[in-house]
Amino acid sequence: MCSSNPVDKLLGMCTTANNREIIEPRIIQLVRELTAAPATDEVADALKPVMEQVVDQAASSSQGGKRLRALLALDAFDILAGDVTPDRRDAMIDLACAIEVFQTAALVHDDIIDESDLRRGKPSAHHALEQAVHSGAIGRGLGLMLGDILATACIEITRRSASRLPNTDALNEAFLTMQREVEIGQVLDLAVEMTPLSNPEALANASLNVFRWKTASYTTIAPLLLALLAAGESPDQARHCALAVGRPLGLAFQLADDLLDVVGSSRNTGKPVGGDIREGKRTVLLADALSAADTADKADLIAIFEEDCRNDNQVARTIELFTSTGALDRSRERIAALWGESRKAIAGLELNSEAQRRLTEACARFVPESLR
Amino acid sequence: MCSSNPVDKLLGMCTTANNREIIEPRIIQLVRELTAAPATDEVADALKPVMEQVVDQAASSSQGGKRLRALLALDAFDILAGDVTPDRRDAMIDLACAIEVFQTAALVHDDIIDESDLRRGKPSAHHALEQAVHSGAIGRGLGLMLGDILATACIEITRRSASRLPNTDALNEAFLTMQREVEIGQVLDLAVEMTPLSNPEALANASLNVFRWKTASYTTIAPLLLALLAAGESPDQARHCALAVGRPLGLAFQLADDLLDVVGSSRNTGKPVGGDIREGKRTVLLADALSAADTADKADLIAIFEEDCRNDNQVARTIELFTSTGALDRSRERIAALWGESRKAIAGLELNSEAQRRLTEACARFVPESLR
Repeated sequence: MCSSNPVDKLLGMCTTANNREIIEPRIIQLVRELTAAPATDEVADALKPVMEQVVDQAASSSQGGKRLRALLALDAFDILAGDVTPDRRDAMIDLACAIEVFQTAALVHDDIIDESDLRRGKPSAHHALEQAVHSGAIGRGLGLMLGDILATACIEITRRSASRLPNTDALNEAFLTMQREVEIGQVLDLAVEMTPLSNPEALANASLNVFRWKTASYTTIAPLLLALLAAGESPDQARHCALAVGRPLGLAFQLADDLLDVVGSSRNTGKPVGGDIREGKRTVLLADALSAADTADKADLIAIFEEDCRNDNQVARTIELFTSTGALDRSRERIAALWGESRKAIAGLELNSEAQRRLTEACARFVPESLR
Repeated sequence: MCSSNPVDKLLGMCTTANNREIIEPRIIQLVRELTAAPATDEVADALKPVMEQVVDQAASSSQGGKRLRALLALDAFDILAGDVTPDRRDAMIDLACAIEVFQTAALVHDDIIDESDLRRGKPSAHHALEQAVHSGAIGRGLGLMLGDILATACIEITRRSASRLPNTDALNEAFLTMQREVEIGQVLDLAVEMTPLSNPEALANASLNVFRWKTASYTTIAPLLLALLAAGESPDQARHCALAVGRPLGLAFQLADDLLDVVGSSRNTGKPVGGDIREGKRTVLLADALSAADTADKADLIAIFEEDCRNDNQVARTIELFTSTGALDRSRERIAALWGESRKAIAGLELNSEAQRRLTEACARFVPESLR
């Protein structure tokens, strides 16, 4: 329960904790409702068991997220909209959930593309369905369709929520644009994997560009935009502000994620250290290292990344080169500068000092304290 | 060009031919616009070539359809709405195109699930992209994402169109429900493939149920519903009428498609005769044959369909059994009865006799004349 202790209020932690408790069960409830067959007709008895497996998998795949995006949307709305009717806040809660449902949809397809058997420590959706129906081909097909169903579900959640909020049409448009941006980002992410390593400046530029489309779009820009629109801000102004704050913040978030993959403990990110290097992922870190490396080190790095896979020694050597070339420091500088840009944009929003402080705090969750 | 000859008008052929000429280029235009990156940001130069390949493939995959669904939507609108402003008709044209874009999205994913290399006589989207980027894994990934992008695009087209038509929210809801129904239908279609052949009544029932979700939903029910709503009909009444006319019509369409696969010439359907049998597809024809067969024939059929693939002799033997058991005649009876049901529902719509005749004609295109 939310305490009325002024210290809690000052810290702003209580709202966020409460919001998380509200969001989590609501996501599962919405996913169960909207991945099941609609009430427009019956499902034949013989087909119900498979339908139930898909709905159960939808719920299972929806669990375990950090809910950073929904929390940013809902916290920003609470800060910007102030006291609103319960119905309007309920609509905003669902809209925040829609972003998380969209993320699950994207991850389900991402795991099929990457042929990943694991997600958040559990079997990935298509892998779990392969096991459930004892068929690789049918299980993968069901996984692909589950991604489709979830992608449609999040738009339907948005449609229902937006009809109960101001800026209805702009909200629907913003959500669809976000979805399109991420899908384009996934295409560009695949394109980066085919980018030659011989031109590191182009690679750094391309990687940052992918971050804008694939990550910043739905992680920070859309949550802020949806909150601003739902709080009644004019669409043009809302887009301008969401981009000014959310674009650098989203880039910083992804850069920090990539940096933690190299320097962080596996406890922090839930992934083994150097996983991106092992997979041969083309990151800004790699581009910065290639840019700063001398001829011999550059040739070494290119040779390591042009192999089909990398062993422990090669991962260790890469981390050594990321450090010695200054690529890690360069990323720290990039992150700090982007966070500064985002803070400055928040300061320009014409909020009272309390609102500005709370919004800064909500945004700060996307950048680890040591990197701000 | 549309002639003013009264015989042409009487036949109603002119409008349909003209509508087809309007729809075709508009689909390509919308697809090119909405599969490209949105104007919200730049795409890095190094990544543009792949983005262009995806947009070109989106356009290519969008070509060659019969446009039956868009034509039904637009013809029904013209019949029901009468004279409207050019802007309202343009909005309805785009809404009709959205159904075709959705179909392309669904087919792109369907081809990945079925591992089909061909579609409409050309390489399927994922297969073409595999060849274009010289990588199976990345090409398939791009194909999967292209399906996602097209699925989002058709909803954006709908959003823009619906905002210029009456019943805006009901139109958006109807489109999303259609999309969800088809996606559920694809899941159920995969489930049917796992249904045992030992209970043919359950199989016939399950197959017809899949037709409702996977085919009737977007082939006949949604085109009629979108037309009725865009013409200003009340949502409840529109849903009731679209279902009454479109449900039996869509089932008849799919039954006829399956029947033509067995008895039709490859010229008519663009597919080799017996293709469904060769693939081992669980159809209503198979269920009806199993129901009516004597013990020996039933065992024969089950043995043929439980194998991994079927040769020419087995296909011929199956067609023989579909004929001798009366399954083909049973399907003809089913189709005629469903078409009769659809006609009766049209007659109950309280249209003037000219509108009733034209709507009957628009619906009749879904059932070959010899089977009505």
